[in-house]
Amino acid sequence: MATQTGGRYTIIVRLEMEDQVPFIDVLKVIHDAGGEITAVDIVSRSKGTTIRDITVFVSPDSEESLIGKISATKGVRIINVSDRTFLMHLGGKLEVQSKVPIKNRDDLSHVYTPGVARVCSAIHKDPSKAYSLTIKRNTVAVVTDGTAVLGLGDIGPTAALPVMEGKAMLFKEMAGVDAFPICLDTKDTDEIVSIVKALAPVFGGINLEDISSPRCFEIEERLQKELDIPVFHDDQHGTAVVLLAGLINALKVVGKQMSDIKVVFSGAGAAGIACTRMLLSAGVKHIVGATRSVGIIRRGVQYDNPMYQWYAENTNPDNISGTLSDAMEGADVFIGLSGPNVITVDDLKKMAKDPIVFAMANPTPEILPEVAAPYVRVMATGRSDYPNQLNNVLCFPGIFRGALDCQATTITENMKLAAAHAIASVVSDDELNEQYIIPSVFNTRVVEAVRKKVIEAAIRDKVARRIPHDFA
Amino acid sequence: MATQTGGRYTIIVRLEMEDQVPFIDVLKVIHDAGGEITAVDIVSRSKGTTIRDITVFVSPDSEESLIGKISATKGVRIINVSDRTFLMHLGGKLEVQSKVPIKNRDDLSHVYTPGVARVCSAIHKDPSKAYSLTIKRNTVAVVTDGTAVLGLGDIGPTAALPVMEGKAMLFKEMAGVDAFPICLDTKDTDEIVSIVKALAPVFGGINLEDISSPRCFEIEERLQKELDIPVFHDDQHGTAVVLLAGLINALKVVGKQMSDIKVVFSGAGAAGIACTRMLLSAGVKHIVGATRSVGIIRRGVQYDNPMYQWYAENTNPDNISGTLSDAMEGADVFIGLSGPNVITVDDLKKMAKDPIVFAMANPTPEILPEVAAPYVRVMATGRSDYPNQLNNVLCFPGIFRGALDCQATTITENMKLAAAHAIASVVSDDELNEQYIIPSVFNTRVVEAVRKKVIEAAIRDKVARRIPHDFA
Repeated sequence: MATQTGGRYTIIVRLEMEDQVPFIDVLKVIHDAGGEITAVDIVSRSKGTTIRDITVFVSPDSEESLIGKISATKGVRIINVSDRTFLMHLGGKLEVQSKVPIKNRDDLSHVYTPGVARVCSAIHKDPSKAYSLTIKRNTVAVVTDGTAVLGLGDIGPTAALPVMEGKAMLFKEMAGVDAFPICLDTKDTDEIVSIVKALAPVFGGINLEDISSPRCFEIEERLQKELDIPVFHDDQHGTAVVLLAGLINALKVVGKQMSDIKVVFSGAGAAGIACTRMLLSAGVKHIVGATRSVGIIRRGVQYDNPMYQWYAENTNPDNISGTLSDAMEGADVFIGLSGPNVITVDDLKKMAKDPIVFAMANPTPEILPEVAAPYVRVMATGRSDYPNQLNNVLCFPGIFRGALDCQATTITENMKLAAAHAIASVVSDDELNEQYIIPSVFNTRVVEAVRKKVIEAAIRDKVARRIPHDFA
Repeated sequence: MATQTGGRYTIIVRLEMEDQVPFIDVLKVIHDAGGEITAVDIVSRSKGTTIRDITVFVSPDSEESLIGKISATKGVRIINVSDRTFLMHLGGKLEVQSKVPIKNRDDLSHVYTPGVARVCSAIHKDPSKAYSLTIKRNTVAVVTDGTAVLGLGDIGPTAALPVMEGKAMLFKEMAGVDAFPICLDTKDTDEIVSIVKALAPVFGGINLEDISSPRCFEIEERLQKELDIPVFHDDQHGTAVVLLAGLINALKVVGKQMSDIKVVFSGAGAAGIACTRMLLSAGVKHIVGATRSVGIIRRGVQYDNPMYQWYAENTNPDNISGTLSDAMEGADVFIGLSGPNVITVDDLKKMAKDPIVFAMANPTPEILPEVAAPYVRVMATGRSDYPNQLNNVLCFPGIFRGALDCQATTITENMKLAAAHAIASVVSDDELNEQYIIPSVFNTRVVEAVRKKVIEAAIRDKVARRIPHDFA
């Protein structure tokens, strides 16, 4: 049987069955075709036939043949095959609601003409009033150009929309932040920068998402410079914050210090660079990065990719050369932000005592946990079906909640470090162990912990324009 | 006492009064200072003092002196003055909600990763699926650059936001359309066009709002050409549709035909041009336009404003010259889309029998209804405090509801004409009279009537990409 992966999903097959067909035969057909039956409901019975909904967990490869085999079963007719994921997307996943009802002329005269004119005039006179009198106070744009969506790559802005809607839902459900998807039909860096600048009046923050490297660096950097609201590329910094949170706790488990460890990175894309920067900020001194194409990144080599150049200048203190596998010699921590199966058991065997492995490639990690288990002390992935899921959902709702609440002009390095420590702190010393270094994405204490530490850091860094009531 | 205008508003004054001060004296202070007392509530009583909330209707001129006079009253202390309009705007008027709850890992795996990837792939393969699987199906952008906001002019994108939020609320409350405000920090025509094009993937329609003339014409025209979703400048076409609806019924009241009437327009801005075009489409043959600066617009004169050139070529069949007042001679209908008090009783006296006057300047009409009353048969304004309010809210929710439901690629002239007839039809022949030519903005039958006729017209014009179930 195939390993359970993130690629499997649930379908609901509605069947009309003649009563003389033994139901167990039908279930056997489904099972033998690779479907895992998770629920059966009777929809209706009539003379001689019964209509049932059968909920089946399938793999992308098996669905078609499974449906074919059911269809071929005598006395059984497929009425409909529905897919729960698609059903949940019908009509989109977001709606825009009025917070104030408009039931009569008097309501209308306050929220719209003529009353609204006085509110407009007040903001015209003092633009900072937009933070109290408009949605700017609580609204974030989730901006993409659809060039680096999940593992799917450059699928374009329209196809990226379901991800951005999902992100907006998480902002709201986790942290009460109103977020709206902006999917841009352009890949031009200058144009994206000027569009986001032009859109800024409505928003209190900008979450950049799934924009391909290296354009994402320039876009973020320029927007941060030119806008007075936080601009945060989640694929970079959300990943980096959560990774650092996990590392803080993993080091506690093994009893090592940030300043002493040797870290090996696989992958130097947007997330790899951001995570490396974050670990340097957090006090890690010894980092070596490697990619499949260029091996260990080091000084003295001319790289086409300007980010590799940055990497060479800021990591690899001993300027070693070789392959990723060579780098693993004596490493305390391996961090994978690359692709499936790039390291082997032999690589793990080269690591220092109590190896920590964060294999975050999605959906297939750099090494599968069940393969790595005998050779590592702490293992984390980006997946929800293994322990220690390092998921950005732990960071972005809380960090924006904090930034919005104090009307931060930007998200500083200290605010990100504070967020990482806040996430790590939600796992108490009593709870902490190899299988539990990071809280669940549904742990309701995470957002409040992150918010609090982020606001404190914003105030210390003098980027807060407002002191929230609970900090006064 | 001042005439009641749209400029007046409600404040709530919280007062602490010593019990030896007669309450009637305080009420008299408020009354004498021009405040109209609409409610009194006791908040609390303690030994010797009472705290009350007094709700007062004030004019912008009187508020300050009224507060001053209350403060100066012995034994009375003002605790707080709040303004209901501002209170209703606190924190903004919109929120973005999830339509699907995310309560556990299973929900998350459907609406976000990993499940969402299959939905993205499906849209990537067939972009038309965005209409069923994303918010595009039901979402409209309310786009402004803040250059022509209400009567306030160029107050900029941030100060315009409360109006756009109000508009989005009306879309939702009236027609279930999800609308989101886009306030652009640029006035450059090319840039606005390219930004709106880039934003289009998320939206099923674009409502342009409060963009100054003549840029609004070019922006709309270019976007209509380049996008495959409806682009509708509401200040132009919403106004035109509602005006035509009113005129259809006003002509019924006086027993005249579109093809026979002589119409005089005051004002040739964006709304004036659009209304003129709409009346020509509806069969009006004799239109004369005039402005304060150039008088009657006619052929043979060279105008700087290209829209005046268009006006000269398409109206004024007899090519008369002179002032607005000259044009009024023998006119059946006067339509004002200009400024306050531009016509007089003498002008009205020159009109043909049973004059129809639509004086739509806001907040002060071209002539006040109480002044015009003895000399006109049917009078309408843009104001809610007189009969026959011609309000765009009658048009835009229903016309977009229809356009979205049939996935229209554009809004055609026929769809606008159909919308006007639908609005007019909501007033039955039994109900129709001089004081009731147009339904209330709260008449719940309007949206459904407009939707139905708009979809029928879209199907006839072959711009509907989908036949709604109730039309199949």
